[in-house]
Amino acid sequence: MTDVEQIVRFALAEDIGTGDITSQACIPAERHAGGVFIGRQHLVLAGTEVLPLMYDQIDFFKKDGDTVSDGEIIAEVHGPARQLLECERTALNFLQRLSGIATLAREFAEQVKGTKCKVLDTRKTTPGLRVLEKRAAAAGGITNHRMGLFDAILIKNNHIAAAGGVREALENSRAASSQPAEIEVRTKAELQEALDHGATHLLIDNLTPEEAAEWIQQIAGRAKVEISGGVTLQNVRAYAETGADFISAGAITHSAPAVDLSFRLELL
Amino acid sequence: MTDVEQIVRFALAEDIGTGDITSQACIPAERHAGGVFIGRQHLVLAGTEVLPLMYDQIDFFKKDGDTVSDGEIIAEVHGPARQLLECERTALNFLQRLSGIATLAREFAEQVKGTKCKVLDTRKTTPGLRVLEKRAAAAGGITNHRMGLFDAILIKNNHIAAAGGVREALENSRAASSQPAEIEVRTKAELQEALDHGATHLLIDNLTPEEAAEWIQQIAGRAKVEISGGVTLQNVRAYAETGADFISAGAITHSAPAVDLSFRLELL
Amino acid sequence: MTDVEQIVRFALAEDIGTGDITSQACIPAERHAGGVFIGRQHLVLAGTEVLPLMYDQIDFFKKDGDTVSDGEIIAEVHGPARQLLECERTALNFLQRLSGIATLAREFAEQVKGTKCKVLDTRKTTPGLRVLEKRAAAAGGITNHRMGLFDAILIKNNHIAAAGGVREALENSRAASSQPAEIEVRTKAELQEALDHGATHLLIDNLTPEEAAEWIQQIAGRAKVEISGGVTLQNVRAYAETGADFISAGAITHSAPAVDLSFRLELL
Amino acid sequence: MTDVEQIVRFALAEDIGTGDITSQACIPAERHAGGVFIGRQHLVLAGTEVLPLMYDQIDFFKKDGDTVSDGEIIAEVHGPARQLLECERTALNFLQRLSGIATLAREFAEQVKGTKCKVLDTRKTTPGLRVLEKRAAAAGGITNHRMGLFDAILIKNNHIAAAGGVREALENSRAASSQPAEIEVRTKAELQEALDHGATHLLIDNLTPEEAAEWIQQIAGRAKVEISGGVTLQNVRAYAETGADFISAGAITHSAPAVDLSFRLELL
Amino acid sequence: MTDVEQIVRFALAEDIGTGDITSQACIPAERHAGGVFIGRQHLVLAGTEVLPLMYDQIDFFKKDGDTVSDGEIIAEVHGPARQLLECERTALNFLQRLSGIATLAREFAEQVKGTKCKVLDTRKTTPGLRVLEKRAAAAGGITNHRMGLFDAILIKNNHIAAAGGVREALENSRAASSQPAEIEVRTKAELQEALDHGATHLLIDNLTPEEAAEWIQQIAGRAKVEISGGVTLQNVRAYAETGADFISAGAITHSAPAVDLSFRLELL
Amino acid sequence: MTDVEQIVRFALAEDIGTGDITSQACIPAERHAGGVFIGRQHLVLAGTEVLPLMYDQIDFFKKDGDTVSDGEIIAEVHGPARQLLECERTALNFLQRLSGIATLAREFAEQVKGTKCKVLDTRKTTPGLRVLEKRAAAAGGITNHRMGLFDAILIKNNHIAAAGGVREALENSRAASSQPAEIEVRTKAELQEALDHGATHLLIDNLTPEEAAEWIQQIAGRAKVEISGGVTLQNVRAYAETGADFISAGAITHSAPAVDLSFRLELL
Repeated sequence: MTDVEQIVRFALAEDIGTGDITSQACIPAERHAGGVFIGRQHLVLAGTEVLPLMYDQIDFFKKDGDTVSDGEIIAEVHGPARQLLECERTALNFLQRLSGIATLAREFAEQVKGTKCKVLDTRKTTPGLRVLEKRAAAAGGITNHRMGLFDAILIKNNHIAAAGGVREALENSRAASSQPAEIEVRTKAELQEALDHGATHLLIDNLTPEEAAEWIQQIAGRAKVEISGGVTLQNVRAYAETGADFISAGAITHSAPAVDLSFRLELL
Repeated sequence: MTDVEQIVRFALAEDIGTGDITSQACIPAERHAGGVFIGRQHLVLAGTEVLPLMYDQIDFFKKDGDTVSDGEIIAEVHGPARQLLECERTALNFLQRLSGIATLAREFAEQVKGTKCKVLDTRKTTPGLRVLEKRAAAAGGITNHRMGLFDAILIKNNHIAAAGGVREALENSRAASSQPAEIEVRTKAELQEALDHGATHLLIDNLTPEEAAEWIQQIAGRAKVEISGGVTLQNVRAYAETGADFISAGAITHSAPAVDLSFRLELL
Repeated sequence: MTDVEQIVRFALAEDIGTGDITSQACIPAERHAGGVFIGRQHLVLAGTEVLPLMYDQIDFFKKDGDTVSDGEIIAEVHGPARQLLECERTALNFLQRLSGIATLAREFAEQVKGTKCKVLDTRKTTPGLRVLEKRAAAAGGITNHRMGLFDAILIKNNHIAAAGGVREALENSRAASSQPAEIEVRTKAELQEALDHGATHLLIDNLTPEEAAEWIQQIAGRAKVEISGGVTLQNVRAYAETGADFISAGAITHSAPAVDLSFRLELL
Repeated sequence: MTDVEQIVRFALAEDIGTGDITSQACIPAERHAGGVFIGRQHLVLAGTEVLPLMYDQIDFFKKDGDTVSDGEIIAEVHGPARQLLECERTALNFLQRLSGIATLAREFAEQVKGTKCKVLDTRKTTPGLRVLEKRAAAAGGITNHRMGLFDAILIKNNHIAAAGGVREALENSRAASSQPAEIEVRTKAELQEALDHGATHLLIDNLTPEEAAEWIQQIAGRAKVEISGGVTLQNVRAYAETGADFISAGAITHSAPAVDLSFRLELL
Repeated sequence: MTDVEQIVRFALAEDIGTGDITSQACIPAERHAGGVFIGRQHLVLAGTEVLPLMYDQIDFFKKDGDTVSDGEIIAEVHGPARQLLECERTALNFLQRLSGIATLAREFAEQVKGTKCKVLDTRKTTPGLRVLEKRAAAAGGITNHRMGLFDAILIKNNHIAAAGGVREALENSRAASSQPAEIEVRTKAELQEALDHGATHLLIDNLTPEEAAEWIQQIAGRAKVEISGGVTLQNVRAYAETGADFISAGAITHSAPAVDLSFRLELL
Repeated sequence: MTDVEQIVRFALAEDIGTGDITSQACIPAERHAGGVFIGRQHLVLAGTEVLPLMYDQIDFFKKDGDTVSDGEIIAEVHGPARQLLECERTALNFLQRLSGIATLAREFAEQVKGTKCKVLDTRKTTPGLRVLEKRAAAAGGITNHRMGLFDAILIKNNHIAAAGGVREALENSRAASSQPAEIEVRTKAELQEALDHGATHLLIDNLTPEEAAEWIQQIAGRAKVEISGGVTLQNVRAYAETGADFISAGAITHSAPAVDLSFRLELL
């Protein structure tokens, strides 16, 4: 079972539990129905992959990454009326949150258009929804950073301190894995030490756009550079024009407001 | 395994996966450390129950429902440095979201103080976090509505349509379960029919405070009344003064912004 | 995965384990067969929902709640002969127990016919079979009480003692949840206190029918009343004529004898 | 996780679900309590292994296989009052059913005392409780037959038909496994054929004690013999005196009435 | 879920994790492809049952137990190109190991042809692959010994020591289970004692073929005999000619070299 | 639960299943014992992390990566005799296989000593044992390549074909992820195209050491180079002296022979 299948099952289970007692009381088991998911505002769609895990019969009119306007139909489902109602709230909870992320990611992506810089997401995701939120961010048009602690080396100041210095941290990581490491540098001295010992990917944190531009000039293409810390829709363009290769923004997954969507049941 | 244990394991697994390759490379397995979780803004704390599921040694200075000021220490943990770093991001992701909900719930609770009305949460929760978000809302000071479809009967318009009318829906629910049903009424005629057939809990949706007050006067104590739809921090007081018994607000779980918290590692 | 799917998988696993070594030795993998489930006594059927979780091809001639006579066919299945034999014992174990419950529940339901009183089941169910046994009881014609500790508030004497009194227990439960509480009262004084503080559902335990009738007269419709304790097929009618709203009987799930059913294989 | 751990968790989950809302409302989280399990009739104890999976602190005064009289204490537990109450019903549901099986098994074992014959249980167990019910039967003093389809070869008439005859079935089973097969014989001709082809374990079904005695005389020690079908407490002695090695009785697990046990909470 | 389904899911999960990031980047989701599994040496095929658990569309040209020559096609699969590539390595890892076992088992089986002796596998299998490796051994033509500790009694010297002697161990095992016990005997005295107390299956370990032949002569058909310890392809014939009923060889599962197989993708 | 915990539980379950019926029959439940794991040949130890998941009391005399001589004690365990015997075979199956890998990895590592080249493992691991086998390889002294498809981009010829060319594949992978890609080049033309479009990591497959040396000269440090295909203990030195950065060898996990280890029980 994939992570996505697991979280969908878990989410259905926490809502349905031992059964939807209202529908069981009021709706005959054999009653069939249809229903449509409809956008209620302008949005970028994401998370549609959860719907086939809930409904057996489904027709899609939109796909992840499409824009949806108020009143547009996203998908149509058919099945036993009880089942449609049982999944309704959970389906909406997924789609509203994930489309919210895609919608915000699209705005970030549009801010940096025309620069060579790519916007990245972070690990500041909702517990349990990491994979889905990362895909929603990609559907919005930004680039995925590492999925978790397991798939890329990112040496931060705690690691440097524990290893005994920038050089030691870089050497240790090269001995342990064939993958290249990204390393955070907090001072010009650390920056120089990292470059001297073969760093190919640097993370610079909490600098103003002006400071970042100056550091990047000094790096002079010897390593890829990621900027993080305090990035917003308002200032992302300024950071992108510093010459950075990547800007990571936690807000995309952490603070995206849910978008408005609804489900309309049609009893047959 | 409880739902909370499951989601915490799942969240750790999605971040750590096959292992934190940076810490494995840079930090010796035997290195121990301490760390503290610190508030970075004024907030109402929630979600602390996840921490003992991640850390073996933990001392709490605050508990769920307490207010935390910028700079105050919430909890202190000890253990292998690798383990503290592995759990850091996941722990923060939980605490920031859940404390965000508690903080917003507290504001709602304070708005209705002095009235007999109780604010309720809804099923508009993050998939996978239902139980934790409901507890966070309660820690903030509001009252929990049903946990899911399984633990209370709430007859909405789709159920009434499928059952063939208000009376039929009420009779069906009484035949199926010993629990009392709540029923949504959308017109004065439905309201009267519900009262005539023994409804003891009514849901009225999408009314202005003035309209709600008038309906409640007509109900005259013959049934408990819940108001829902479009409830905000700004208008919740007006709704509470209508004489309603309950007001439910999806925003508490759905739109609460995450609060700012940090983790400071101390290598020993 | 629902609770029912889980317990069916678990039951198959405990019987089949690493494989049915007899069938593997004696029956070619490609051999197909049919088979029928047949009643071997008069019974009320329940538990048929487990069969489609075991067999891919199945035709039903009876459904839950139907009466079945000795010799009547309940369902016909087709598939690989090995698979039919692997599931045979487990399928019978489910059907015989659950139909036993439905058969007994039907007798209880018929005893109270013509009164306003409803017979309820209890939580005295077989570990692992709660949901199935509750559905079997409903198929027999009685009404389901709460599914577990999670979906209704039932304040018993231990809770009253811990809360500090009847009033305190009722107030605490109202603060915590929007759901109405049922409360057990053991003396006339507790009864009065409960009514004085807004109790709407009362449980009275271990009274004779005569005593119960007197208590119910005193309650005078101010609250719904459930009778429990020592209820049997022999005395349930007398309790039902006391004016009680509900009578709960643990025997329905706890002591229902299994009914006789068989499976006949037809090698093709 | 063992099968027993799984079913205990599952049983707790189906009762507690998202939480015991009554205890959460009425009993402070920090309140501690003790409690004792007490016999309420004469019984043979079984199933005590489930208690340490529910309670952290437990002292046993009786162990599986011991007799318990009305009023005797079986075990004493301590812990948070909420937890004791959450597990109460599930613990009793296990103990009452399993001790019922042990109590009945003891009666069967005593019936055959002094003969060389052993009473066996069958696969007619409650779905999900196979391992526990088999251990309860053993605690009562009978011998365990195979645990499931996976751990012994038992060739029944369907297998013989599918294999093409008694000889073929025996040969096939010897080719597939190093374990000896037991084979059901329904006629004297089958009996002879089985003995001619090396059968070492025979099952004879649905014979009267007199018929069985005659068959066993004809077998003359060339194979072990198991009798099954229609065995009751009343006739088991007669079957045991036929010279059979084993008698299997489904009733032990299938029809054992639950015994009476109670739990008494003591708030500290 | 069967053991085989579980290990296949687990193996796919450990390779694919949160997704095949290379295929996701390079291959459009809608691209379809075919692919064939091809033998790259002479081998006996096993493990094909894992393929339908990975691929939806599959045609087999060979089945378990068939010989495959260099260049022969085993099976053809179709599906989304991404999915074919995601499963490629895992499918090969299964097939190469399991066919290696079947290929070696076939060589053992051929060595003993013409004797009455059967070669058995052991419990010296790869953790997690027990069921599959046992089936692979059977596909190669040898006979399965017990699956695990749960499905047969094999009394070794530690058990004899703990029980207090050969006789006590045999008596204890007969009291506990209706299944016949196999017992290891290490000296002529133990051999005699075992025979005197009704042992029907003997294990003799670490004898030369000559010694084994002498022991077997002394047993004189009174019990089945299994030889184990130091059995190789080179000496298995000599052991088989001692008159033993069974020879068990750990090497079949423990030391079988993987065979060479490949997968060829065809983009459509 | 981590992957390692899962596979250990699974391996124990497949061996123990519903219980070790021999030990249950022969050894009293309360009997305690000790036991030691002993090397039976010269080996490099790995896999010791599985032991604490099986035994509660354990003292280690050696750790992963240590060499063990014939007769040396690795670890000592204590506990109920039944439990020690239940885990014995599974523990040995793990240790023998994993130490076999570490022992072979050590030989590879020693072959390349003094060159700048690192030996890598591959994804050709036993299904279910990926994490453990990779750690065993690292304990032997080589460097871990990617853990699976999820944690690094490795563009092979199928990906290039599907993407439409080397350039397109490189561009696609850069758009999708912030991680650098490794790309397989099969011709000098592909090599040049890869370098022209920014490839930083190259995989060259199935070349002789002489050919590889020539290619590496042409690359001239512009990218890291990994050699794979047909690498053995005999030729790995020759490949290492070509100037390659990495050599990957499937044989380390795929073909490592198990080492000889034993467990000696001491009844107390």
